[in-house]
Amino acid sequence: METRQIPNGIEHLRPMPVDVSQRLVARVRQHVEAMLETMQIEPGGRLPSERTVALDLGVSRNTVTAAYGELEQRGLIRRIRGKGAFKCSPLGSGESFSWSGKVSSRAHLLDEPVLEMLARNNALGFPYPFSAGTPSLECFPTDVYHASIDKVIGNSFPGALAVAPTEGQKQLRHTIGKWMDVAPNRVMVTSGAQEAVDLLARCLIEPGDFAIVESPTYPGALQSFRAAGARLVGWETDWSLSKLEQLLLRFNPKLIFTGTTFQNPTGKVMPLQTRLGLLDLAARYHIPIIEDDVYGKTFLDGHPGPESLLKLDKHSSVIYVSTFSKMLAPGLRVGWVIAPLYMVKQLSLMKMRATLFTDGLNQLALSDFVESGGFDKHLEKLRLHHASLRNAAVAAAQDAAEEGLLSFSAPTGGIFLWCKLDPRTDIDLLQEATDQKGLTFAPGHAFFPEQKDQKFLRLCYTAMPASHVKKGIEILVQALRDTQPCEQDVPMEATARVSAPGPF
Amino acid sequence: METRQIPNGIEHLRPMPVDVSQRLVARVRQHVEAMLETMQIEPGGRLPSERTVALDLGVSRNTVTAAYGELEQRGLIRRIRGKGAFKCSPLGSGESFSWSGKVSSRAHLLDEPVLEMLARNNALGFPYPFSAGTPSLECFPTDVYHASIDKVIGNSFPGALAVAPTEGQKQLRHTIGKWMDVAPNRVMVTSGAQEAVDLLARCLIEPGDFAIVESPTYPGALQSFRAAGARLVGWETDWSLSKLEQLLLRFNPKLIFTGTTFQNPTGKVMPLQTRLGLLDLAARYHIPIIEDDVYGKTFLDGHPGPESLLKLDKHSSVIYVSTFSKMLAPGLRVGWVIAPLYMVKQLSLMKMRATLFTDGLNQLALSDFVESGGFDKHLEKLRLHHASLRNAAVAAAQDAAEEGLLSFSAPTGGIFLWCKLDPRTDIDLLQEATDQKGLTFAPGHAFFPEQKDQKFLRLCYTAMPASHVKKGIEILVQALRDTQPCEQDVPMEATARVSAPGPF
Repeated sequence: METRQIPNGIEHLRPMPVDVSQRLVARVRQHVEAMLETMQIEPGGRLPSERTVALDLGVSRNTVTAAYGELEQRGLIRRIRGKGAFKCSPLGSGESFSWSGKVSSRAHLLDEPVLEMLARNNALGFPYPFSAGTPSLECFPTDVYHASIDKVIGNSFPGALAVAPTEGQKQLRHTIGKWMDVAPNRVMVTSGAQEAVDLLARCLIEPGDFAIVESPTYPGALQSFRAAGARLVGWETDWSLSKLEQLLLRFNPKLIFTGTTFQNPTGKVMPLQTRLGLLDLAARYHIPIIEDDVYGKTFLDGHPGPESLLKLDKHSSVIYVSTFSKMLAPGLRVGWVIAPLYMVKQLSLMKMRATLFTDGLNQLALSDFVESGGFDKHLEKLRLHHASLRNAAVAAAQDAAEEGLLSFSAPTGGIFLWCKLDPRTDIDLLQEATDQKGLTFAPGHAFFPEQKDQKFLRLCYTAMPASHVKKGIEILVQALRDTQPCEQDVPMEATARVSAPGPF
Repeated sequence: METRQIPNGIEHLRPMPVDVSQRLVARVRQHVEAMLETMQIEPGGRLPSERTVALDLGVSRNTVTAAYGELEQRGLIRRIRGKGAFKCSPLGSGESFSWSGKVSSRAHLLDEPVLEMLARNNALGFPYPFSAGTPSLECFPTDVYHASIDKVIGNSFPGALAVAPTEGQKQLRHTIGKWMDVAPNRVMVTSGAQEAVDLLARCLIEPGDFAIVESPTYPGALQSFRAAGARLVGWETDWSLSKLEQLLLRFNPKLIFTGTTFQNPTGKVMPLQTRLGLLDLAARYHIPIIEDDVYGKTFLDGHPGPESLLKLDKHSSVIYVSTFSKMLAPGLRVGWVIAPLYMVKQLSLMKMRATLFTDGLNQLALSDFVESGGFDKHLEKLRLHHASLRNAAVAAAQDAAEEGLLSFSAPTGGIFLWCKLDPRTDIDLLQEATDQKGLTFAPGHAFFPEQKDQKFLRLCYTAMPASHVKKGIEILVQALRDTQPCEQDVPMEATARVSAPGPF
């Protein structure tokens, strides 16, 4: 093992605790060094805890801490808060660096198999990608959008290429402001709705703060709030106001996150009276609301939901999030926030660290596309197409519902069918079975802020042609039958139930 | 003032400290409520501290804490950690919500005038935007890039519109891997280099961790590291290795952030021997290096810098960051990281919360643009053009240097002139004077991790035509003369000094 010169005077740089004898520290250090050298511990392996060493050698804990500190400074061990001390790899030829010991605890929090699985599913290119979260791209008006791109490159390309305002391109803020009927300076452009949620989490959440989210809700919000250190409290999507008031009193949360219209994943619409009651409670208890309205314009039966919280709000307690991803194409990465001016400023300051600003070409092309009426025309076409896909999905799932294999409410907007399964279903087994058939789904547990015993699937019916939707659900239903537990004597918890499509 | 019904049993929801008498708490609460009602405190105003109230009323601090807690639960006051308790606005007609009390302490950290000022400068549209950080957009090969865009829309638009891998479009990872001679799966695409730095900060920094940054350095890195909770330690850009080793021993930092080639803002190039020594120290002390190489390919006199740390590294201790922003156009928002596979995975998990993935159209167009050789051709043209702009800037600044108004080293790459001023210069006064002439600059203090007495300016000479560069620097020099302190008897700290452009 390489020996290493330590500059004189290191003790002067990092003061020792006064109650620790240098001589004792050196002895402990030599003891541990010997242990490291005789290879009792492999590189990457954990050292005995400081407490154990202190007991073994009959010295104080502080002495061992000081000795471990010296070993760490020499690069021989690495201490990780809350995990212990680990032996570093000796420096050899091309020996690789131990990155895992460098990752922050916040990043370790994110090591969740569900998200990786969803990402993997997207990359598989399976014929039945029900795990997706995309509107139908068959409807994308390529020629019209291409014309908008050409117009930008021809007329205002320098504006798209240059450093642009963090709040977004002036034209697009104006266009969205007009389209949504709000002042343009309250609009902030983000790199998709996910950036909006993440910036809000970073701007509002103090580690340890409580945040109320729906149960179930959008997994990306769960992830961003958790990464910011929030403790999440679930509000069930029956949206009981008295339950909410209890949660507000009990947890004094920092915010309420709600998907009001065609909520992800349930597809539910919050009734007008509940919206008014929610706004009243939020104002009374001074709790900000984040309204996730990314599906609000994707109604399928001619009936948009009630007015958004943003419109109903009288106290500027609502921050509104939407995106072109769920109405046009996720690959454009253009979303927006509508917020009070004070929060537009705070979010911009945060975005300066995050991504500086959002790419110009799509922003300017989208502005032209919306202004020219191309977007509204596209939305009409998309709603009709999505409705036919929804009909195909509902028709195919109906048989399974009558058979008692699953239950669902037919959605009146959005892009998902949220199916409740027999609680005895083995989701892993089901996943294995559908994987083999080229079919993916989003398992329900990813959507809940807390552990849930109930079993759900979220099926995106807009990521494939209608014929595939029908065939895919048949494949899924067969896989459900094949993987059903044998004991038929345990009754399903809830009666299978299908509601006809209605206004909400 | 509105009175409010509190549901019975609230005490059961949030347990009181055992040593607090309910009767006393109620009395304190009534006392503070009366104070709030008689309007001794304006909405938004601070209440007396809990300690003061406890002393005034002769009760324990815990009693006051409990009373304040009850008032907060009723929405009458809002407590902010480390700042005190504030009176909420009463609910009136359209009374606006107090957002400032909701912002996290991390966001409050960001409330820095320098960044706002730089952002404002970008938006001004002044004729002499020396505060910018952009390559010359005059060189942008619009027709060639437009052809790449058309090719993507014609051949692979669905791939640009769909949900894409968080790590980046496969084609672009491949292209960058080939262009940089690294394995494509070590390449991760980000929404500009700023996102790369921010993701790295969030993945590596634990609040309270030390991080070594150059002094001076890129302000966006200072901001992201600070936002992640880092304590920053400056390493001066004479890049002394013995100084670095002392810092490593003293602070046991989580990472070293370095701009090795044409460093921002100094334009300096780290010598090969220093690079090797830095790598050795980093490996010896197991400290990761983040190499910011966004200017590495923008050499001006035919001489690229020494090999990057990435190439020289034998222990995978380097994460490399670059971007098309400084070589092509910042508005494209496409940067990249080259990292060990373990860190590509960690960064991707973090990016899933941040922006999910980067927009597809520019990624695919850039892949085509690089593969077709358009990018390399553009770089050659850009270097020549930037060299002529650099020459104009250096020539214009030379007189001022001889006059003793400033000193600088002529840069051999990158886009900045880093000027040292007389330490007595009043930067605010200078800024006022140049503002009136339509000229902006980046004040030096934004680039230092610590307070600096020395005065510097960073001038971006590539954001305007050569004629403007010359005229602009003349305007700046005149403003320097006009705002120079009257007492001519205090000598300038360092002798004015101009180095001729050389290899490094």
